[in-house]
Amino acid sequence: MFYHIKELQYKAKPDRPDPVYAKKLQEVLGGQFGEISVALQYFFQGWNVRGDGKYKDLLMDTGAEELAHVEMLATMIARLLDGAPVGDQEIAAKDPVIGAILGGMNPQHAIVSGLGAMPADSVGNRWTASYIIASGNLLADFRANLTAESQGRLQAVRLYESTTDRGVKDMLSWLIARDTMHQNQWYAAIKELEAKENIVVPSTFPKELEKREVSYVLFNYSRGNESAAGRWAQGKSMDGLGEFQYVENPQPFAKKPVLRPAPAYIHDTPPQVLGAMVPPHTK
Amino acid sequence: MFYHIKELQYKAKPDRPDPVYAKKLQEVLGGQFGEISVALQYFFQGWNVRGDGKYKDLLMDTGAEELAHVEMLATMIARLLDGAPVGDQEIAAKDPVIGAILGGMNPQHAIVSGLGAMPADSVGNRWTASYIIASGNLLADFRANLTAESQGRLQAVRLYESTTDRGVKDMLSWLIARDTMHQNQWYAAIKELEAKENIVVPSTFPKELEKREVSYVLFNYSRGNESAAGRWAQGKSMDGLGEFQYVENPQPFAKKPVLRPAPAYIHDTPPQVLGAMVPPHTK
Amino acid sequence: MFYHIKELQYKAKPDRPDPVYAKKLQEVLGGQFGEISVALQYFFQGWNVRGDGKYKDLLMDTGAEELAHVEMLATMIARLLDGAPVGDQEIAAKDPVIGAILGGMNPQHAIVSGLGAMPADSVGNRWTASYIIASGNLLADFRANLTAESQGRLQAVRLYESTTDRGVKDMLSWLIARDTMHQNQWYAAIKELEAKENIVVPSTFPKELEKREVSYVLFNYSRGNESAAGRWAQGKSMDGLGEFQYVENPQPFAKKPVLRPAPAYIHDTPPQVLGAMVPPHTK
Amino acid sequence: MFYHIKELQYKAKPDRPDPVYAKKLQEVLGGQFGEISVALQYFFQGWNVRGDGKYKDLLMDTGAEELAHVEMLATMIARLLDGAPVGDQEIAAKDPVIGAILGGMNPQHAIVSGLGAMPADSVGNRWTASYIIASGNLLADFRANLTAESQGRLQAVRLYESTTDRGVKDMLSWLIARDTMHQNQWYAAIKELEAKENIVVPSTFPKELEKREVSYVLFNYSRGNESAAGRWAQGKSMDGLGEFQYVENPQPFAKKPVLRPAPAYIHDTPPQVLGAMVPPHTK
Amino acid sequence: MFYHIKELQYKAKPDRPDPVYAKKLQEVLGGQFGEISVALQYFFQGWNVRGDGKYKDLLMDTGAEELAHVEMLATMIARLLDGAPVGDQEIAAKDPVIGAILGGMNPQHAIVSGLGAMPADSVGNRWTASYIIASGNLLADFRANLTAESQGRLQAVRLYESTTDRGVKDMLSWLIARDTMHQNQWYAAIKELEAKENIVVPSTFPKELEKREVSYVLFNYSRGNESAAGRWAQGKSMDGLGEFQYVENPQPFAKKPVLRPAPAYIHDTPPQVLGAMVPPHTK
Amino acid sequence: MFYHIKELQYKAKPDRPDPVYAKKLQEVLGGQFGEISVALQYFFQGWNVRGDGKYKDLLMDTGAEELAHVEMLATMIARLLDGAPVGDQEIAAKDPVIGAILGGMNPQHAIVSGLGAMPADSVGNRWTASYIIASGNLLADFRANLTAESQGRLQAVRLYESTTDRGVKDMLSWLIARDTMHQNQWYAAIKELEAKENIVVPSTFPKELEKREVSYVLFNYSRGNESAAGRWAQGKSMDGLGEFQYVENPQPFAKKPVLRPAPAYIHDTPPQVLGAMVPPHTK
Repeated sequence: MFYHIKELQYKAKPDRPDPVYAKKLQEVLGGQFGEISVALQYFFQGWNVRGDGKYKDLLMDTGAEELAHVEMLATMIARLLDGAPVGDQEIAAKDPVIGAILGGMNPQHAIVSGLGAMPADSVGNRWTASYIIASGNLLADFRANLTAESQGRLQAVRLYESTTDRGVKDMLSWLIARDTMHQNQWYAAIKELEAKENIVVPSTFPKELEKREVSYVLFNYSRGNESAAGRWAQGKSMDGLGEFQYVENPQPFAKKPVLRPAPAYIHDTPPQVLGAMVPPHTK
Repeated sequence: MFYHIKELQYKAKPDRPDPVYAKKLQEVLGGQFGEISVALQYFFQGWNVRGDGKYKDLLMDTGAEELAHVEMLATMIARLLDGAPVGDQEIAAKDPVIGAILGGMNPQHAIVSGLGAMPADSVGNRWTASYIIASGNLLADFRANLTAESQGRLQAVRLYESTTDRGVKDMLSWLIARDTMHQNQWYAAIKELEAKENIVVPSTFPKELEKREVSYVLFNYSRGNESAAGRWAQGKSMDGLGEFQYVENPQPFAKKPVLRPAPAYIHDTPPQVLGAMVPPHTK
Repeated sequence: MFYHIKELQYKAKPDRPDPVYAKKLQEVLGGQFGEISVALQYFFQGWNVRGDGKYKDLLMDTGAEELAHVEMLATMIARLLDGAPVGDQEIAAKDPVIGAILGGMNPQHAIVSGLGAMPADSVGNRWTASYIIASGNLLADFRANLTAESQGRLQAVRLYESTTDRGVKDMLSWLIARDTMHQNQWYAAIKELEAKENIVVPSTFPKELEKREVSYVLFNYSRGNESAAGRWAQGKSMDGLGEFQYVENPQPFAKKPVLRPAPAYIHDTPPQVLGAMVPPHTK
Repeated sequence: MFYHIKELQYKAKPDRPDPVYAKKLQEVLGGQFGEISVALQYFFQGWNVRGDGKYKDLLMDTGAEELAHVEMLATMIARLLDGAPVGDQEIAAKDPVIGAILGGMNPQHAIVSGLGAMPADSVGNRWTASYIIASGNLLADFRANLTAESQGRLQAVRLYESTTDRGVKDMLSWLIARDTMHQNQWYAAIKELEAKENIVVPSTFPKELEKREVSYVLFNYSRGNESAAGRWAQGKSMDGLGEFQYVENPQPFAKKPVLRPAPAYIHDTPPQVLGAMVPPHTK
Repeated sequence: MFYHIKELQYKAKPDRPDPVYAKKLQEVLGGQFGEISVALQYFFQGWNVRGDGKYKDLLMDTGAEELAHVEMLATMIARLLDGAPVGDQEIAAKDPVIGAILGGMNPQHAIVSGLGAMPADSVGNRWTASYIIASGNLLADFRANLTAESQGRLQAVRLYESTTDRGVKDMLSWLIARDTMHQNQWYAAIKELEAKENIVVPSTFPKELEKREVSYVLFNYSRGNESAAGRWAQGKSMDGLGEFQYVENPQPFAKKPVLRPAPAYIHDTPPQVLGAMVPPHTK
Repeated sequence: MFYHIKELQYKAKPDRPDPVYAKKLQEVLGGQFGEISVALQYFFQGWNVRGDGKYKDLLMDTGAEELAHVEMLATMIARLLDGAPVGDQEIAAKDPVIGAILGGMNPQHAIVSGLGAMPADSVGNRWTASYIIASGNLLADFRANLTAESQGRLQAVRLYESTTDRGVKDMLSWLIARDTMHQNQWYAAIKELEAKENIVVPSTFPKELEKREVSYVLFNYSRGNESAAGRWAQGKSMDGLGEFQYVENPQPFAKKPVLRPAPAYIHDTPPQVLGAMVPPHTK
C-alpha cells in the first residue's frame, strides 16, 4: 500500500521557463531509462519476489523513491513550460529566440497536455512496459537494475551538460547523486548473490546439460582478430569453471537445412513452382 | 559488410513437429531478450564505437553469432510447424491431442507466416527496437549485454525444462552453453573497464558536481527495515569513495510545489474554477 | 513523495492456483483500463494541476490507492501461478485438466516472468502510456476518469462472472466496490465543475468564434432516421444555449478539393502521368 | 456499407502554406483524440451494438461524419504542405524564415508521404487502435465518447489559438462547433441511460455482491486533507444508494503477503539464496 | 464526405457460434493486411493524390468498399461470439468441447469488447498505422496495394481452409472474389503507369546521378551460387536500360571506418579507456 | 551463419558534420522502408522458404547486402553527428546556425545514443517488426519486396534532394543504384512466378470456390465515375480469366444485420434499456 505526501523529495524549480529544455528533460521521465521505467521495474520485481526479506524491501524502497523522482521531473517540466508561447511560426521567426522556442518545443506540450509533463520520451514516444524487466531471478534482475541506473545516470549527465539553468542543474545534481547510490547498491547486491551463486545466470541449471565444449569459446565471426587480445579470449574463465579459447576461423557445426514443403491447405508457393533443388550454376 | 553461408552454426532439428512448442520458442527468437535483440544490440553498439580495437571487434563477432542463432531458431520453428493442422476447433476437440494443438498454437503461424517463424515473441508481440540499448558508453552498454545474456539464458533454460523433444533439447543445450560464454565474456570486459574507470557510470562526470551528501545513502521509503541488513546500508561504498548510510525515516528536502496558472490561450481549467488554496477540512 | 507499507490494502489470496485465470486477470492489471492506467493517469493529472486544492489532493489520493490495487493484483496473479506446470503439450493433452492449463496459460508467465505478474494485458500486449490522459483541463480529464472507472468496473464484473474461486471473488468484490466509489466521486467532481463552467469543454472559448449554425445540428449521415427519435435531435440543447436540429439529408458545404502538384524534388507521380482532370466517363 | 462523395463536408483551404503548422495539425487527425480515433471508435461501438435502434444509428451517423473530418484535415494538411522546402539546414539558417520552417516541419512530410497527410500525431507517433474503446456497454462507451469530444475540442481550440491563418481558423471553427454538438449529443444520450440505469456502470451487477462497506468511502492516501472539502466526501452518494464517508488515516485491511517459492524448473532465485525471513535490522 | 447505409455489402452470418474461430478471423479485420489496413491505406493515398482523375476515384471507390468489409467482418465476429461461454477453465476441462473453446478464445472478446469485434489481429495486437503506406508516388503505392491484396487473399484462403461453417465460407468466398478483382485492378493500374514511366520508382530521378556501374549487378553475398541461375543474373535488365551481371565473390568498395572520439560533454567511453588502435593479436 | 568483415560495402563519409541531416537520414536506416526492414524481411522470407534453390539464395544474398547498408548508414550518421553541439537553446538562438542545429536535431542523438545512429526513423519512432512481411508464398512476398524497394528508393531520392553535402550524395547515389537493381531483380522474379502461376495470389485456391460473379467487377462506391475510364473497368481481366465490369450504382447484397443480445453475464447494455426496434422517426 502507498501513501503520498505533498512535499517533494528535492527541489524542482528552474531559474526560468525553457520549453525546449522541457522537451529534452522528458527523456529521463518517460524514456527507456527514465524514472517511470525504474519505478515500475523495481515494483514488479519486488511484487514478484517469492519469499521475503532484504532484497524485496530494497526493491520497494527504491521503487518508491523513483516514483518521487517522476514527481520531481513532472513538476520541473511543468515549470519549464510556464507561459510557453504558441503561435505562428513564420511571425515568430522574426524574433529568433521565440522562433527557436516554437520550432524546438514539443507541440504536444501545448496541444495535448496543456503545459504539463507527459509520460513520453524526448521525441514523444509514449512510455511502454516493453522497457522493463522482472524475471523472478534476482541476479538477472539486479543486473538489469545496474544497467538501468548506468544508462539513466549517463543521460542525466548529458542533460546536465546541455543547460545553464542553475535550478535545473541543482535538481540534476541530486538525481545524479542518487544514481551513484543506486549503482552502488545494486552492485553490492549483485556481489552478494554472485558470491553465493557464481556468476552465470541461472546458477541452478546443471552444467552437464549444456554443450560444455563451447561454453568458453570465442568464435571470431568478424574477420580480423583484434578481439583475441582481450581477457575473454585466454586464461581461466570468469566463473572459474573453464578455460577461455579463441577460434580464429570458426566453421559451421551443422549442414545446410532444407525444409519440407507445407501442406496444400497452407497455400505457400507450391513445391513444383519453387523449383527446389535446382542444380547450382557453374560459371 | 556481411557474408552468409548456408550451413547452420549448429543443428536445429526436432524429433517431431510440435506447433505449440513452436509458439513458445518464439520468445527466444523475437522476444525482449531473444536473439534479434542481442544481434541488433551488439551491431549498433559496435557501429557506434568511436575508435577501434578489441571491444568493437568483440561486439561484431558476437553480433554475427547471434544472427546465426536467429537463423537456427527460425529453422527449428519452421520444422516444429511441419504439417501443423488447421481446422475446426470443435471437431478437433473430440481428439484431445489435435484439440490441444489447435487451441495452443499461434494462429498467425498458419494464417500469416505460412508455417514459418515470425519476428515476434511467444504471445505474438512483434519485435521492437525499444528493447535494445546502445549509448556510446561501453561500460553502461556491456552491463546491458550481461543483463541480456542473463535473461536470455534464463529463458532458454525454462524452455529446456518444458519439452521432452531430444532434438530441441540438443539445440537449446548449445544456445545455453553459448550464453554461458557470453556472460563470461561481457563479465571479463566489464571487469577490465571497471578497473580503469571505477564502477560508477559515467566515470567522467566530476564528483564535486553531484550532491555528494546523498551519493551513498539508502532512504527507507518502504516501512520496515529489512533492507538495513544489506551490505548496501553500511560500510565502505562499492566504489570506495564513500560510506554507506541508512536513513530509517526519510523526510522531504523540499516544499510542496504549487504551479502557476497557465496562460488563457491554453484553456486549462481557469484558476477561479480550480478554487486553489481552499483551506483544509477540519474534522 | 511516496511511502510504501508492506501490508496490502485488501486480501489477495485465491483458494487455489489457476494459471489460466491468472492470464485473464492481467487485463485489469495491465490492460487499457487496468490499475496501472488509472494510477498513472491520476498521478499525471495531479502533477499537472496548475494551482492547488481539493482536486489535486483527490487525484493524488486516488492515484495512490490505484497503485495499491496494482500491488494486490500482482500478488494475486503470482499466487494463481503457484506451481504452474510447464511441459510437453502433447503428453499433457492426455490429462485434459493439465492440457487445458498448458494450452490456456500465458507462456510468458513461465518463460519471462518466472511465475510473476507482468505489466501486460490478458493477451500479452505490454502496457503503454498511449492509454492515459492528462490535459490540464480538469473537466475533460474527470470525464476520462469516469470513463476509466466505468470500463474498469465492467471488466472486473466480467472477470467475477468467470471464476468460482472464492478468494478471487472476494478480492474482486473489493475492487468492484472501490470502482463504485470512484465512479461516484468523479461524478460528483464533474457536477461541481459543470455547475461552474456549463457542460461544453473548454468553457473558455468564446462562443462567437465557432460556427454556431452547426453547434446543435445532428446530421443524418447513416441512412434511415432512427437517430431522429433521440433527445439529441430535438428540444433545447443540453448546455441550454441552443436548440437541437435534425438534418435528414445532409449535403456538403464545400466543393470537391483538387490539390496542386508537388514540386519536382518530391518525386511524386508527375502531373502529366497522373492524367489529372480526365473527363468523366459517360455510360 | 459506405458511399463516398467527393465534396468535402466543409472548406479546408488555408490562406497560405505553413508546413510547421501542418505538423501540429496532425494531432487532431491522427493523435489520441484525433478524428481517426473517433471515427473508428463510433463505428466499432455501432457494429457491436446487440440490438438495433436509435443508439446504433446515432453512432453510425457520427462515425461517418468523423471520417469526413479526417478527409477535411488530410486535405488541409496537404495544402499547408504545398511547395514545402527541403534542403540544407545550415544554408537555410541564413534565412530565418526558411530555417524555422525546415527545423520545425515533420521530416516525414517530405521524405515519407510526399507532402501528404499521415496517419500520425503531431510528433509522428503512428495512430494505434490502443486509443479506442468499444465495450458493448453503451453507458460506459458514451462516457468514453463524451471524453473524446471534450479532449478533441480542447485540442482544436489550442490549435485555433496558435495560428493567424484565416482559412485554417475558419475550418477549425467548424470542427469546434461540431464538437460542441457531439458533446451535447453524448451528454443527452448519457442522461437518458442514467435515468434508466442509475449512474454506476454496469448497472446489472447485484449490489450485494460488492463489498458495500467501502462503496462510498474516500480513503485519504495523500497526506493533508484538502480532498475532504469536496462533495465526494460527505452527504448522499451520487447514485443515491449510500452516504459518502471520509477516512483520514486509512489503514491496510490485509497482512503483508509472502509468496511461496517457485518450483525448481522455473529457475527463479533459489529460496536458500533469497534468504527469506531475515530478521529485521535494529538500529 | 461519407454516407453509411445499414445494409451489408454481403451476408455475414455463420451457421453457428464459434468463439475460437472469431479470434482467428480477427486477422483479416485488424491484422497487418486486414480490412482496416486497406481501407485506410486507400483513403490516405486518395486524399494525398495531387491532382484529380481516375486514380484518385479508384482509390476512394475501393477504400469505401474495404470499409464495408470491416463492417461485414465485425458483424460476423459478433455472431461467432454469440453466447460465448465464460467460466472456470478447470471445470470446463471436463467437457472437452467447452474446455477447448475457453482455452482457445481471445479473453478480451469477453472481458474487453463484450462479445464484439476488436480492432486487433488474431493474437490481440491492436491495429497500428505503421502497417499502411501512402507516399504520393502512385506507382510505388499501387505496388503496395497489390501486395496488400495478395497477402490479404492468401490469409482469407487459409482461413477458408480452417472452418467447416458454411456461412463463414460463404462470406469468405465473397471476400476472396473481391480480392481477385482488387489484385486485377491494381495490376491494371500498375501496367498503365509502368508503360508511361518504365518500372523503376521514382522514374523522375536522373539516371546519371546514380552509380550506374552497380545498377544491374547481383552481388553474391550468400556463399553458393544458386542465385546465379535466375533471370536477374543475366541478360537485359527488366527496365531495358542495362545488362544484368553476377559477381560471385563481391569485395568491399570502401575501407574500414574509424570514427572520431566524441566531445567530452557526451561522456562516451573516453578514448584512452577505449584503447583504440590496439595492434591485432598474432597467434 | 554469418561472417562480418570490417570494410564497408561503399564509402560513408560526409564532407562535414550535419546533425539535422543525421536525423533525417535515420528514415532510411530505421523507418518503415529503411534498411533494417529490408534486411530482416529478406532473411525471414529466406529462412521460411520450404525447399531450396535460387529464390532462397537470392533472398539471403540480398538480405546480407541490406545489412551492409544498415552499417553504412550507421557509420554515416555517426559522422554527421561528429562534435554535435548540446547546449542552451536560448543562448544558441543568438547564432542562427547553432540555433537551427540545436532546434532541428534529434535530442536522443545526444542524450540516448551518445552521437551514434539509432534503430529509429526520422521522427524517433523505434523500428518495429510490424513493418515486415514473410508469408511463405513467394509471389506475395516478392511483391512486398518490390514495394519496399520502390518506397525505399523514393525516400533515398528525396533525401538526395535535400542536401548539398557531396559525401552524403555520393553514398546515396550508391544506395539508389542498388535499389534500381533490387527493383529489377524482384521484378524479374515476379515475372517468372507469374508466368508459372498466373497473377492472382494464391494461385492454388480453386476458382470455383470463390464468388466468381464479383471477381472482376468494379463497384463505384465513390460518386462520380472517373474510375470508369480505366483499364480495370472494361475489357479482359488481367489474369485472362474474366471480363471487367463497372457497376455505377452498387446496391447491397445483404440485409441490415441485427445482433442477438449478449448473455447476462457479459453485462452489456440490457436489451430493455437498449430500446431496440424503436420505430423510425417520421418528419
